[in-house]
Amino acid sequence: MANNIKHPTLIVDKKICLRNIEKMVMKAKEHNLMFRPHFKTHQSAVIGDWFKLYNVNSITVSSVIMAEYFARNGWDDITIAFPLNILEINKINCLAEKINLNVLVENKDAANVLSCKAKYPMGVYIEIDTGHNRTGIESSRTGLIESVMQILSKNKKLVIKGFLTHTGHTYSARSTNEIFSRHFDTLLKLASLKRRFKPRFPSVEVSLGDTPSCVLCTNFSGIDEIRPGNFVFYDMMQKNLGVCNFEDIAVRVSCPVVSKHASRNEVAIYGGAIHLSKEALINSAGKRFYGRLVVNKKGERTLLGERNYVSRLSQEHGILKVSQKNFHLFNIGDLVEIIPIHSCLTANLFRKYYTTGGEEIQMINT
Amino acid sequence: MANNIKHPTLIVDKKICLRNIEKMVMKAKEHNLMFRPHFKTHQSAVIGDWFKLYNVNSITVSSVIMAEYFARNGWDDITIAFPLNILEINKINCLAEKINLNVLVENKDAANVLSCKAKYPMGVYIEIDTGHNRTGIESSRTGLIESVMQILSKNKKLVIKGFLTHTGHTYSARSTNEIFSRHFDTLLKLASLKRRFKPRFPSVEVSLGDTPSCVLCTNFSGIDEIRPGNFVFYDMMQKNLGVCNFEDIAVRVSCPVVSKHASRNEVAIYGGAIHLSKEALINSAGKRFYGRLVVNKKGERTLLGERNYVSRLSQEHGILKVSQKNFHLFNIGDLVEIIPIHSCLTANLFRKYYTTGGEEIQMINT
Repeated sequence: MANNIKHPTLIVDKKICLRNIEKMVMKAKEHNLMFRPHFKTHQSAVIGDWFKLYNVNSITVSSVIMAEYFARNGWDDITIAFPLNILEINKINCLAEKINLNVLVENKDAANVLSCKAKYPMGVYIEIDTGHNRTGIESSRTGLIESVMQILSKNKKLVIKGFLTHTGHTYSARSTNEIFSRHFDTLLKLASLKRRFKPRFPSVEVSLGDTPSCVLCTNFSGIDEIRPGNFVFYDMMQKNLGVCNFEDIAVRVSCPVVSKHASRNEVAIYGGAIHLSKEALINSAGKRFYGRLVVNKKGERTLLGERNYVSRLSQEHGILKVSQKNFHLFNIGDLVEIIPIHSCLTANLFRKYYTTGGEEIQMINT
Repeated sequence: MANNIKHPTLIVDKKICLRNIEKMVMKAKEHNLMFRPHFKTHQSAVIGDWFKLYNVNSITVSSVIMAEYFARNGWDDITIAFPLNILEINKINCLAEKINLNVLVENKDAANVLSCKAKYPMGVYIEIDTGHNRTGIESSRTGLIESVMQILSKNKKLVIKGFLTHTGHTYSARSTNEIFSRHFDTLLKLASLKRRFKPRFPSVEVSLGDTPSCVLCTNFSGIDEIRPGNFVFYDMMQKNLGVCNFEDIAVRVSCPVVSKHASRNEVAIYGGAIHLSKEALINSAGKRFYGRLVVNKKGERTLLGERNYVSRLSQEHGILKVSQKNFHLFNIGDLVEIIPIHSCLTANLFRKYYTTGGEEIQMINT
């Protein structure tokens, strides 16, 4: 494969993906949780099929467009984990006619539109904000939750499934303990809601899904379903959070070296913001970086230390800072592998993957 | 058009683009400069045709892939303004067989490969670094420049065209004066090189091309060609640098409002990092932002003040911070227009544009 790479190329290691999927499937089973992985990370029907090897048959997506794509590719149980976009109500009805569809509601306006216009049976989750402060109703606002449920109850096609949250503030945790405590706080808030609404909605379910807590935590008391997504690939962000090891990261971008500047220990690659995305992290020396570096010599892949990193990105150029002792490892025409900061955003920038075995894998083409 | 938008949509105002193109064409003419606009900003054959209305027939691109695309679409005079990627030498030969192709060299290794393998006539520029510190040979390293030229001279198919630079450090200028002084410094460095090499290469040309200096500066002494690209669309970065006004910005992303949170003056839109890119600026209150907001009421577009901005991005979610007095302007199901920070990166995230008149415009599909 490496012999054929001429420009920035997204590589996926199928073996690592399968191992990551299997581990999460087992974790869900161990804790008696339904498993509805988020497919926004890979956006590929072929990679979706890898989940089927482990009997996964229900999935999560983040847009109607993605739901349509996976429905076309044989998935018939899909949750769109994004606040209902009322402008897409017709497409949502079309989907609900064909598959088991769940949507998300977090305000009265959208609930009213859905209640008026839903034509086919569909599940509805109320999105709960347990502290991420992105979208969702704060768990303490039980009056508003009640109102939204009442509005939805008017349409008998709508099945109120329960409460859904994304503890996304685990991503900004500064320690593993902080991930535990944010997850635990979420559990308490959702348990309280479940207790309150169970008498009137006996089948009420609770769904959560961020990769850090799904991987690290072992207490899922009161939770019915998990929806992690990133774990299939992982990335530098997850590694820095202590969620995965380097060996668990399944994607990288292979980039040609085009320029070397010894006076500033910099190497330029063909591989820029349109290949890696401008998602960044700060390393222990306080430097912003856009990816870590792997060199592949005689078939052996080595992750270089954290003083070797992608330091700047233009549209097509990437500038690598490289320690003096490693500078000789980079030569014009070599390929260097960049481990992405956020694999979901990096994958989204490509139209296809190549497996380490050289197989071409298509993804959604909108 | 607005009635049909259901999801994040890239809108281009053709009238503004034509005005921006015309102004730059006139500026080049006024200063007796060849005009070779950079097409990496729009990556669209249709928008390329808009330049033909002003008799533009030579262009710049930033990759071999882009050169192939525009060559297929009738452009036959193309400079690839990116350091030669020796892994693509076969494709470069194929292009050079068909069109007038110029490539860029900035090190001896790439010069050697090109000198050995170039099979068809092509132009070569030596890339000079005048202070941007990205790629290129520092202008003071005349010995290295000399060596590279000697290597290239061995292959009679190669025509040494001259020196090419990108004064990209105008983008980090903190004032218009700083843009002037960086541009002027570039002029001095290139003039000195031209003087030195003219006796032996009488036809040596000098090419530069960053939008800030091409727009703002009026001294182009010693310059033969300009290659700006971003000016066709402009964006918030250019506006903040004082290079354009809001009225000159030709692109925006129209996004549905899906959620409102009065307690924190936040509005959530369907429109995230995969639509806008994570390129950011810092506003005068020290806040990082990913776009500015335009509301469209009764056909009138209004740019809201700088306290209204895209404050956070997830993959598909955008969180808008909105001043209390403007909060009522946003309702579930409305469309809000986001003015991008860096239009090149935002455009790259889409597969097509829609004009304000509703015409669909395809772009490169790699």
